[in-house]
Amino acid sequence: MSVSKELPALDAHLSKFSYVGGYQPSKLDTTVLASGHVPSSPPSSLPHLRRWAKHMVSFSSSECSAFPSLSAEYKVDEQLSDILQNSLKMDKEIGNDNATQNKKSKGEGGKGKPGKFVLKTPKGTRDYGPAEMAVRRNVFHAIESVFHMHGAVEIETPVFELKEVLTGKYGEDSKLIYDLEDQGGEILSMRYDLTVPFARYVAMNKITNIKRYHIARVYRRDNPAMTRGRYREFYQCDFDIAGQYDAMIPDAECVQLVHQVLSKLDLGDFTIKVNHRKILDGVFGACGVPAEKFRPICSAVDKLDKSPWEDVRKEMVIEKGLDGEVADLIGEYVQQSGGEELIEKLKNDDRLKDSPVSQAGLADLKLLFDYCKDLGVDTYLVFDMGLARGLDYYTGVIYEAVLSAGQTSNEEGTVGSVAGGGRYDGLVGMFDPKKKTVPCVGVSFGIERLFAIQERKQRDEFGKIRATQTEVFVAAACKGMVQERLKLLGLLHGAGIKAESSYKNNPKLLSQLQYAEDNGIPLVALIGESEVQEGIVKLRNTSTRQEETIMREDLISAVKERLK
Amino acid sequence: MSVSKELPALDAHLSKFSYVGGYQPSKLDTTVLASGHVPSSPPSSLPHLRRWAKHMVSFSSSECSAFPSLSAEYKVDEQLSDILQNSLKMDKEIGNDNATQNKKSKGEGGKGKPGKFVLKTPKGTRDYGPAEMAVRRNVFHAIESVFHMHGAVEIETPVFELKEVLTGKYGEDSKLIYDLEDQGGEILSMRYDLTVPFARYVAMNKITNIKRYHIARVYRRDNPAMTRGRYREFYQCDFDIAGQYDAMIPDAECVQLVHQVLSKLDLGDFTIKVNHRKILDGVFGACGVPAEKFRPICSAVDKLDKSPWEDVRKEMVIEKGLDGEVADLIGEYVQQSGGEELIEKLKNDDRLKDSPVSQAGLADLKLLFDYCKDLGVDTYLVFDMGLARGLDYYTGVIYEAVLSAGQTSNEEGTVGSVAGGGRYDGLVGMFDPKKKTVPCVGVSFGIERLFAIQERKQRDEFGKIRATQTEVFVAAACKGMVQERLKLLGLLHGAGIKAESSYKNNPKLLSQLQYAEDNGIPLVALIGESEVQEGIVKLRNTSTRQEETIMREDLISAVKERLK
Repeated sequence: MSVSKELPALDAHLSKFSYVGGYQPSKLDTTVLASGHVPSSPPSSLPHLRRWAKHMVSFSSSECSAFPSLSAEYKVDEQLSDILQNSLKMDKEIGNDNATQNKKSKGEGGKGKPGKFVLKTPKGTRDYGPAEMAVRRNVFHAIESVFHMHGAVEIETPVFELKEVLTGKYGEDSKLIYDLEDQGGEILSMRYDLTVPFARYVAMNKITNIKRYHIARVYRRDNPAMTRGRYREFYQCDFDIAGQYDAMIPDAECVQLVHQVLSKLDLGDFTIKVNHRKILDGVFGACGVPAEKFRPICSAVDKLDKSPWEDVRKEMVIEKGLDGEVADLIGEYVQQSGGEELIEKLKNDDRLKDSPVSQAGLADLKLLFDYCKDLGVDTYLVFDMGLARGLDYYTGVIYEAVLSAGQTSNEEGTVGSVAGGGRYDGLVGMFDPKKKTVPCVGVSFGIERLFAIQERKQRDEFGKIRATQTEVFVAAACKGMVQERLKLLGLLHGAGIKAESSYKNNPKLLSQLQYAEDNGIPLVALIGESEVQEGIVKLRNTSTRQEETIMREDLISAVKERLK
Repeated sequence: MSVSKELPALDAHLSKFSYVGGYQPSKLDTTVLASGHVPSSPPSSLPHLRRWAKHMVSFSSSECSAFPSLSAEYKVDEQLSDILQNSLKMDKEIGNDNATQNKKSKGEGGKGKPGKFVLKTPKGTRDYGPAEMAVRRNVFHAIESVFHMHGAVEIETPVFELKEVLTGKYGEDSKLIYDLEDQGGEILSMRYDLTVPFARYVAMNKITNIKRYHIARVYRRDNPAMTRGRYREFYQCDFDIAGQYDAMIPDAECVQLVHQVLSKLDLGDFTIKVNHRKILDGVFGACGVPAEKFRPICSAVDKLDKSPWEDVRKEMVIEKGLDGEVADLIGEYVQQSGGEELIEKLKNDDRLKDSPVSQAGLADLKLLFDYCKDLGVDTYLVFDMGLARGLDYYTGVIYEAVLSAGQTSNEEGTVGSVAGGGRYDGLVGMFDPKKKTVPCVGVSFGIERLFAIQERKQRDEFGKIRATQTEVFVAAACKGMVQERLKLLGLLHGAGIKAESSYKNNPKLLSQLQYAEDNGIPLVALIGESEVQEGIVKLRNTSTRQEETIMREDLISAVKERLK
C-alpha cells in the first residue's frame, strides 16, 4: 500500500470530520485503527490524522466495542471510500456496508457529501433535563441560603481565562485544560476550577478581604467516566474567605458552614475530618523524611482513604524511595485519629514535642476544636492524621466531610467525600507582581455528588420528581372555551397564582384532568358554558378528585386557602 | 531590512505570546504595526504573525491610543529586543524604554524571560462583583418567578457544542463563533445563543412538546463595545414553547409573559410591538418584490427602528437593487402602526385582499389581539408593520418590547429593545434526519440591558447596592470575647438568623459598629464581660443607634420581632 499517498487523503478527510465516519466514533474508526496501516504516532505533517490517532487510543476496549456500526443513512465520501477500500484492509462487514453505501450515494447523483451526523453533546458532557434541573435548583437554594447566613457575597468570573493565568497552577493536570483555538487575539483556556480565577480576581482588584461564594461549571479534558457520574463539564461550589485575620476564626467558620450545609440537606450522619499541613510536615520531619520528599510523601498519605496502609507504604518505599523504617514510623502516626485527647497526646509526643512546626499545627487545631465547640458544630469533628488532601497549595488546616456509610455508596460500594478544603495562604501571591499575598481559607462542595444523592432521595420518597410548580390547571368541560380559559388564566396570574391551561382550542376533558394528575398540579379550575353564564367555577382537588362550586369572585381566596 | 530573517523571529515570539509585549496590548504593538515592516496580511507560513496582524487591525484608533506603554516591570526577551531595535523603526520613547529594560534584564543575570503579564480578563469579558451579582440575582428571581407562573421547566445544555451543530445556523455571523482548539477528539465550538442548542435538544431527545426556559451565558467574538455594555460573554434568557398546538394560544402566552416580566421589574411604561412574517411577505409580494429578494428587503425593513425611512429606502434601491417605485409602495405599508383597526383596514386593502398569505397573517394577528385582551395584557400592544426582526428563521408572529423613552436611553440617547422573539417553525427540523419539525415560539429577554437598568435604578433609589443579606452583627465591647461571640453566632444561626462577626480576636468597638453601618446590617448584638455574666445582650438598631437590653433567652424572638 502506498502510505505516502493514502494517509494524506485520510488526514484531509479528518481535517473536516472528528472521526472517519463523521462526527461520532464508529466501527469504521476501530477498523481503520486495527488495520495497522496508520502509524500509532503519525508524523506532524499529518496533524489531523495525528489528532485522531491520539484520540482513538484514549478509548478503552469496552468503549470501542460499544461503538455503533455506521448507520445506513451515512454516506461515505466517494474519495474517502476509495481510500478505505483500496488501501486499508477492512473487515468484511464494514467493506460491504461501505460498498452498498457508496453505490447508494452514486445512485443519488454522483459526488455524495458526508451525510447527517448523529446528534449528540460533546464527549464527557450532557444536557440536564427538567427533573434534574429541579433537583439542582433545590440544592443550590439550600446551599446559597447557608452562604447568605454567613454574609457571603457572590462573584462571577469569565468561563475562560488568559492561558497564562492557569499556567503553572495545576502541575501534571495542566494537560487536562481545554484551550480555545487561536482565532486572532489572545490565547485563552477554559477555567479548570474556581479557585485560581478567584485568586486572580483578588490579586487583580487588589482586594484585601472578601468572603465570597461562586457556583459555576468548570472544564477538564479528563477521560470521562460518565456511568460513575464523572464528566468533563461539571459544577463546582466554592466558599472562600480571604483576608489577614486572627488564627482559626475563619477556619472554624468553614467547618461550621460544612456542618450547616450537610445538616440542611438532611443527609444523615457525617464526619468532618480535620488535619493540618504543619502537623504532617512536622511528622515527616521528625520521622526523617528528606525535605524534598515532603510533598510526594504527603500525596501518598492522601491515598489512605482509598487504599490500605500496606499499599501506601509500598508507594512510599518502592515508588518514592523512602527508607522502610521511616515509612513505618510515619505509618504509626497517620493511622491515628481521634479528638482533642489525640492533640494533647501529640503535644507531648517524644518526637514531636521539640518540633516547632508540629506544635504550631497542634495549637491551631486545639483552637479550631474550641471554636467549633463554641459554634456548636463539634459533634462530627474528627482529627484524622491520615487526611492529607491532594493539592499542593494548602498551607494550614485541611478538612474533608464524608457521609456515613450507606448514604453515598455508589455501585462500587465506596463512600466518597462531599466537601473538602483548607487554608491556602500563598496562592493569591502568585498573581501579585510583588508577591504580596492575601491569606485564604475555603471549602468546595462536591455538588455533583450532592445532586445525585438528592435525586435518588427524591425519587425514593416521591416516586418521581416534579419539575414544575404549577398550582392550578384551568380546564374546559366543553368546546369553544379558549377565550374563557384565557380570562381565567389572566385572573389567576394577576393574583400571583401559578396556572396553566391547554394550548388546544378544544382539548378533551379527560386528557386535561390526566395532565393535572401526571404533573402533580394540586387544583383544577373547571368551566363549561353553564359555569360561565352563572359566574361560577368548579374547583377540583386533583388527589381527592372532589369538586366544589365556587363563585368566580371568590376563586382567588378559595384557591389560596386550599394551597396553604 | 531583511524581512525574511526578522519576521520569522517575530512570528516565533508571537507563537508564545498574544502581543509583542506579552499578554496585553501595548504601545509596542502599535509601534511595530506602524513601522510598515509587517505586511498587512503576512504569509500563511507565519501564522502567528498573521494572527497578530489580523487581530491588531480590529482595534479602533481610540482603543490603540489607550494602550499602555510597557510597564517598567516588563522585560523584553533579549532576542526579540534585538529584532525590534535592529529591524523595525521604533519611535524614540519605546526604543529607549526598551534599551533600558534590556540592560536591566541583562543586569539581572543574562537571558531575561518575558516578565509578568498584566492581570486581566480576556478581551470582551469581565468579572462581576458582589453588588452587580446581587442585582443580577434579583432580576433572575423576578423573571424566573414569572416563568414558574407559566409552568415552565428549566434545562441546561453544555457551554460548547459539536461545531457541526452550529454550522449553517448563523449565516455571516458564523465567523463570530469561538472554536476550541483541536486537542485530539471532537471539533467543538462555544454556544452562540441558546436557541440552536434548544432545537438540538428537542430534536435529539425526540421531544414533541416542552415549555422551557434557559438562562445562561453565550459567546460571540464580536468587536466588544464595553462602554456601551456589549461584551463577548453575556447572559441570554430564553423562554420557548415547542409543540404542535392551535393557532396563537402559545404565541399569546409569550406576549403575556413579556408583559408580566416588564411589569414585575417595575420599569414604567413600555410598548410591545407585534407583526407577522406572513404579512410582511404578503406586502412584499403585492408590491412586486421578486421572491428571492424577500429576505434582503425584510432585513432592510428591520433597520426602521434605528434609521429614517429615507435611509432604508436607499438601502433597498441602491444596495439591494429594488425598483424605486416598489420601494415607495413598501414604504407606505411599513411606516404604519396601530391596533385592531389597522388589521381591519388591511384585510380590505386593495393590494392585500387577494393575497392569501397576507390574509392568513392578518387572521393570526386578529386572534392574537383577542387572546391578549382576554389575558388582560393588551394595554401596551401595538401592531407595527415596520417590525421585521433580523433573524431568518422566523415564520410567523414576531414581537419586540421597548421601554418608553427616558427609561433606557443610554449615553447616545437611543432607546433599545428589552425583549423580542417570535415563531420559528422550521428550526428543529434542521436537526432531524427526516426533517420532521416541531413548531416553536419563544421570547428572549435583553437581560444584560435589564441588569443595567435595575442597577442604575437601585443606585438612584438607595445610594448604594447591598450585596449581603446579614441581619445581625455580633460585636464585642471589650477584649477576650472571641469564644463568647462564636457562641452567640451559633445561637443565631441555629435559629436561621443571618449573622456575622469580626474575624479578629480583639476588634475595636467603633470599627465593628462602623462595619454594620457600612454594610447595612440592621441589628448589632453587643456583649461585654458584664453582659456575659448577667446573661444579657445589648441589641442595637443600626439606623436609630438605640440600644435595648435583652435577656439572652429572649434574644431570638426579640431579633425576629425587630426584623419584621
